[in-house]
Amino acid sequence: MKYQELVANIKKKKSFLCVGLDTDLDKIPAHLKNTEYPIFEFNKQIVDATAEYTIAYKPNIAFYECYGVKGWISLEKTVEYIRTNYPDIFLIADAKRGDIGNTSERYAKAFFENMPFDSITVAPYMGEDSVSPFLGFNNKWVILLALTSNKGAFDFQYNKENDEMLFEKVIKKSATWGNEQNMMYVVGATKAEMLSDIRKLIPKHFLLVPGVGAQGGSLAEVVKYGMNSDCGLLVNSSRAIIYADSTEFFAEKAREAAKEMQLEMSGYLSRLG
Amino acid sequence: MKYQELVANIKKKKSFLCVGLDTDLDKIPAHLKNTEYPIFEFNKQIVDATAEYTIAYKPNIAFYECYGVKGWISLEKTVEYIRTNYPDIFLIADAKRGDIGNTSERYAKAFFENMPFDSITVAPYMGEDSVSPFLGFNNKWVILLALTSNKGAFDFQYNKENDEMLFEKVIKKSATWGNEQNMMYVVGATKAEMLSDIRKLIPKHFLLVPGVGAQGGSLAEVVKYGMNSDCGLLVNSSRAIIYADSTEFFAEKAREAAKEMQLEMSGYLSRLG
Repeated sequence: MKYQELVANIKKKKSFLCVGLDTDLDKIPAHLKNTEYPIFEFNKQIVDATAEYTIAYKPNIAFYECYGVKGWISLEKTVEYIRTNYPDIFLIADAKRGDIGNTSERYAKAFFENMPFDSITVAPYMGEDSVSPFLGFNNKWVILLALTSNKGAFDFQYNKENDEMLFEKVIKKSATWGNEQNMMYVVGATKAEMLSDIRKLIPKHFLLVPGVGAQGGSLAEVVKYGMNSDCGLLVNSSRAIIYADSTEFFAEKAREAAKEMQLEMSGYLSRLG
Repeated sequence: MKYQELVANIKKKKSFLCVGLDTDLDKIPAHLKNTEYPIFEFNKQIVDATAEYTIAYKPNIAFYECYGVKGWISLEKTVEYIRTNYPDIFLIADAKRGDIGNTSERYAKAFFENMPFDSITVAPYMGEDSVSPFLGFNNKWVILLALTSNKGAFDFQYNKENDEMLFEKVIKKSATWGNEQNMMYVVGATKAEMLSDIRKLIPKHFLLVPGVGAQGGSLAEVVKYGMNSDCGLLVNSSRAIIYADSTEFFAEKAREAAKEMQLEMSGYLSRLG
């Protein structure tokens, strides 16, 4: 998907919601467990219920990989279903991959050619040649980890060299490897106050913001410090939407939760004009 | 596998060779391509030919993931075959995973429960709670990226805070999360001169050393600066062994290449007594 298409979808749907498909077999409603691919069945119903309010879906690959071949089939079926039925959805493989050049290229093929993802999250530790192979695909995106939403973010991401923190160095350096048409950054909502400094480094790039809701981040704060004139935000919610309810009404409740977030987002977007 | 078993295997086989199973469908001999799982067939013959000289096998997961479900099946068949036929082999999932706590736990289950790997490579950027879930499994290991063998290693790993480089901070901090019985570190052979400094920080931990051979690192240098009294090294070779030959004699040639490395290693080990 091109940058301008993404922005147009956000304006059309009045939403910058990303729904995290972190689907846990232990948490899905009992009546789905007898189907052949319960995770796919769950995802399908969640997607059908929430797509109207959603810009992006983000399956976290760990939740599929942990079920082996069957998990992998569920992932493939999920992204195929979304791509076919909701072609305007931006698909994010939350995989946090990254390896030496020829190996990163394999990961890129896995998610960009073998599956129809638009983007993949990538870990920066191994540097440029671990990231750039993902940038060689038309209309595909790298979403690079910058400042994550977890406690461990404080271990290394704030490492300071000459008054520059590691996550700032990651952003500055990597911004020269691609541009705002093929790179985004992960910045956790739990670090919303850092967003205004980050916006000085990368005013135009989209930011993927996890951590709103279950992890304690505030949408209002994220918007206040992180929104730009094209919106520039994809705010993720996983558990608060997909596990809004654990009964046979789970999809309807997920729809309500997504709609509520979209309504709040629509208010913020209207200020952009 | 326990630390003492690994050391005993090294002494018994007089080898600290790890063979990287980075199996590329485009590079395997033509006569294997008509089988149902050509990658597994190739791996099986490589393993049968080289296991006598080998301590560890390390499939890089990208090389399987890029073929989707079929690749995943080939991976599962490969590790199952090795675990069943060569129970003294140390199995490394070169996956470079790492995510927030509950998600890293999923990756741990994928490789430690769903598959019989002994260890997994993990990326440190997200800090303690992204690494520690992998440490909660008996006799399983984290192999943490410290100083990698690629060019991009220079982008962030040498980031300096108060005279301490990032890879040193990663080693020092993470060494308190586990111990030498459940953690190893990746240190590229192309950075062999750094090994003596690293040994001051972690005298007892095993180091997984990629980059000998195709990437230009020297085994003699790695041993000189990195070996400890229990050996403390697993030196990986991928392409130089598995693609030693591209004809129907590939397995025999791989055997010769592995034997040659083992012979050199046996010389270094004999000095330990």
